[in-house]
Amino acid sequence: MTRSIFHQPDPKLDLVLERIVDVPRELVWMAWTTPEHLKKWFTPVPWTTVDCEIDLRPGGIFRTVMRSPEGQEFPSVGCYLEIVNTEKLVWTNVLAPGYRPSRPPAAMPCDTFSFTAVISLEPHGNGTKYAALVIHGDEEARKKHEEMGFHDGWGTALDQLVAVVKKM
Amino acid sequence: MTRSIFHQPDPKLDLVLERIVDVPRELVWMAWTTPEHLKKWFTPVPWTTVDCEIDLRPGGIFRTVMRSPEGQEFPSVGCYLEIVNTEKLVWTNVLAPGYRPSRPPAAMPCDTFSFTAVISLEPHGNGTKYAALVIHGDEEARKKHEEMGFHDGWGTALDQLVAVVKKM
Repeated sequence: MTRSIFHQPDPKLDLVLERIVDVPRELVWMAWTTPEHLKKWFTPVPWTTVDCEIDLRPGGIFRTVMRSPEGQEFPSVGCYLEIVNTEKLVWTNVLAPGYRPSRPPAAMPCDTFSFTAVISLEPHGNGTKYAALVIHGDEEARKKHEEMGFHDGWGTALDQLVAVVKKM
Repeated sequence: MTRSIFHQPDPKLDLVLERIVDVPRELVWMAWTTPEHLKKWFTPVPWTTVDCEIDLRPGGIFRTVMRSPEGQEFPSVGCYLEIVNTEKLVWTNVLAPGYRPSRPPAAMPCDTFSFTAVISLEPHGNGTKYAALVIHGDEEARKKHEEMGFHDGWGTALDQLVAVVKKM
């Protein structure tokens, strides 16, 4: 297998959430890659994730449907790019399954900017060093994502993930 | 290693060039993945490829600079997505190196539409079954690419590749 590239975040274009969590990385990985688990933590309450489809291969689908407290649904479809078991998970919303370039995103809050996300997991004592890197194409997209509440949103989702993993 | 997805071309959205060539696939692979070789065949004469950069890893750069007979240069930057040694090579121009979403393409003929390309090589007797699949996001992009002369262009480039390989 070819060695993986190193991701150097660009503060002008990227957003980063890094944290140590007290659950083993194999379970964090499972929470990210199994629809039944992911649906339990992926969206900060009172939002919910009502559907999820995962084909864990490069070019495979990563699809979620989020539902607002008012009952409006926001589907999102992307494609996995790189999968290093328990270590690194990469997907993007600029490619649809099979690496097909996406059509311009529909006017919906969860899909108004293009990004690639990189989840990196390292063992840390009995826990995990968790890093989420979100890569944007321009400063405007980064800013929009930040203003939508990236840190709170991804942070709360991670709290929920840890709680779900502890009940596994 | 995770198994690779199967690519089913969509005739409305995709373009395909398939041919049997009488050179071994290891050398076809080398011609596609080594800048010094690629520059010799990549653009149908009288166009030339004056520069090429290859980092053969998922997320790694694939950059070329084509020069018109009039001397105008057309840089193009994309990123590799999947590399299965001597079998399958995938890259796209909707992601820049490191999987960063590309900015909207500049107004230049070689970069006016988004695509992902999949080169597949199979042994065929002493030769190679060669398939180039170009995946577009909508019918307009496919049509534009076809009208720009996809079949002649990629076909002539393949003739040039075979000639280069035979001199290796």
